[in-house]
Amino acid sequence: MGRVVFIGAGPGAADLITVRGARWLASADVVLHDTLIDPALRQLAQRARWVNVGKRGYADGTGQATINALLVRYARGCETVVRLKGGDASVFGRLEEELDALHAAGVACEVVPGVTAALAAAAATQRPLTRRGSGRSVALATAMTQSGELHATRSADTEVYYMGGKHLAALARRLLSAGWPADAPVCVVSRAGWPDQLASDHVLHELAHASMLHAGRPAVVTVGAGARPLASRRNVRQADQSAVTGTPKP
Amino acid sequence: MGRVVFIGAGPGAADLITVRGARWLASADVVLHDTLIDPALRQLAQRARWVNVGKRGYADGTGQATINALLVRYARGCETVVRLKGGDASVFGRLEEELDALHAAGVACEVVPGVTAALAAAAATQRPLTRRGSGRSVALATAMTQSGELHATRSADTEVYYMGGKHLAALARRLLSAGWPADAPVCVVSRAGWPDQLASDHVLHELAHASMLHAGRPAVVTVGAGARPLASRRNVRQADQSAVTGTPKP
Repeated sequence: MGRVVFIGAGPGAADLITVRGARWLASADVVLHDTLIDPALRQLAQRARWVNVGKRGYADGTGQATINALLVRYARGCETVVRLKGGDASVFGRLEEELDALHAAGVACEVVPGVTAALAAAAATQRPLTRRGSGRSVALATAMTQSGELHATRSADTEVYYMGGKHLAALARRLLSAGWPADAPVCVVSRAGWPDQLASDHVLHELAHASMLHAGRPAVVTVGAGARPLASRRNVRQADQSAVTGTPKP
Repeated sequence: MGRVVFIGAGPGAADLITVRGARWLASADVVLHDTLIDPALRQLAQRARWVNVGKRGYADGTGQATINALLVRYARGCETVVRLKGGDASVFGRLEEELDALHAAGVACEVVPGVTAALAAAAATQRPLTRRGSGRSVALATAMTQSGELHATRSADTEVYYMGGKHLAALARRLLSAGWPADAPVCVVSRAGWPDQLASDHVLHELAHASMLHAGRPAVVTVGAGARPLASRRNVRQADQSAVTGTPKP
């Protein structure tokens, strides 16, 4: 009986994986991976068999029950099975279902944490999620509920929504209803961590304009204190309030 | 004029740094680091000068203004200055002040994200922060305000407090006042990500018992949906509700 190592690959570029994650990949016999994984990660696990069990965008690909069964089957036949997920497995990674299935089958598991998309977006845009004096709490949430409704709140100083880029107009309406002011700063980063990432700055009541730019791309939407440009950058941005920036130098 | 690269080292063990962070360290001329950094990271930047500008525990060490001035001075004399912070620089990392000082001095900056302590604690205890159906949002907060007051809320399905282990009794009172039920699950992990990490399980009204165990250690306290043991582990825990676990195999 082998073991299953869950690894958060980080969002986007292959070098955002942790050193521990990279080392486990090197000893993997099989890698079950999501679709949104940088193909360059394959170089870290060349002797492994790579199996795509991912969900493309927000539509269901391989069903969860099938993934669970595959994990158990491979764990019975191999020494080291890696389950590679984008971002961090503990945040919106459906880790619970897979761990439960493996525990029930008596398979030993290990979880290697990773960089979740909100952190990569904050790093790329140089917008710290916490701010001295005004940003003491950060909430991470999915905007879309299981039943397909859009949900938003105003509960933390900074809120970060993981969502599809095409729903920004609806998100803006929900955020206004939840009590965010019309001029609250919003920063949208789609494909955070990838070479083709896009970042744009908005005020809440104009967020709908960003839909066309980010449509069809997974996005991280930051609202509140952590979306504000730094004091040293505020003059730069004032002249260019919907600034679009590509990826920084890797 | 050189550049300053902010790197989130991840919490604890050196191999929780990202591959990108490790690569930047290898080309560093100077590394300005916090106190709570694994000394093993020095092997990744052997030719660099290492300068400890850290704050030990929660007392002030080197003042922020001094750190800012040092960063600017080293950036003027070296090609690559690394500012190494525990966890992720964008979350409770005082990144704002340092970026502002460097931008004002015309120094180019880059931020490499890292694994924040909440994610390492979730991975080590195999408690995903989001749960299907019951845990759609996660809030990260510092329990202690700048003025030294303890603050707690009930705003997300899962809340994670970054704090000192000795304040658990006070946190429990605040969480009860904020509306969390007395039997809400709480998971405390101190020194998350380090070889000597400790994890313990509690229900909220008995959280004060954990103070002695975690006193004097930085702790991550998870409350709500994400603190609940997995279904497959619930029977194991029922017989041993205050289970203490050391570090998992690295």
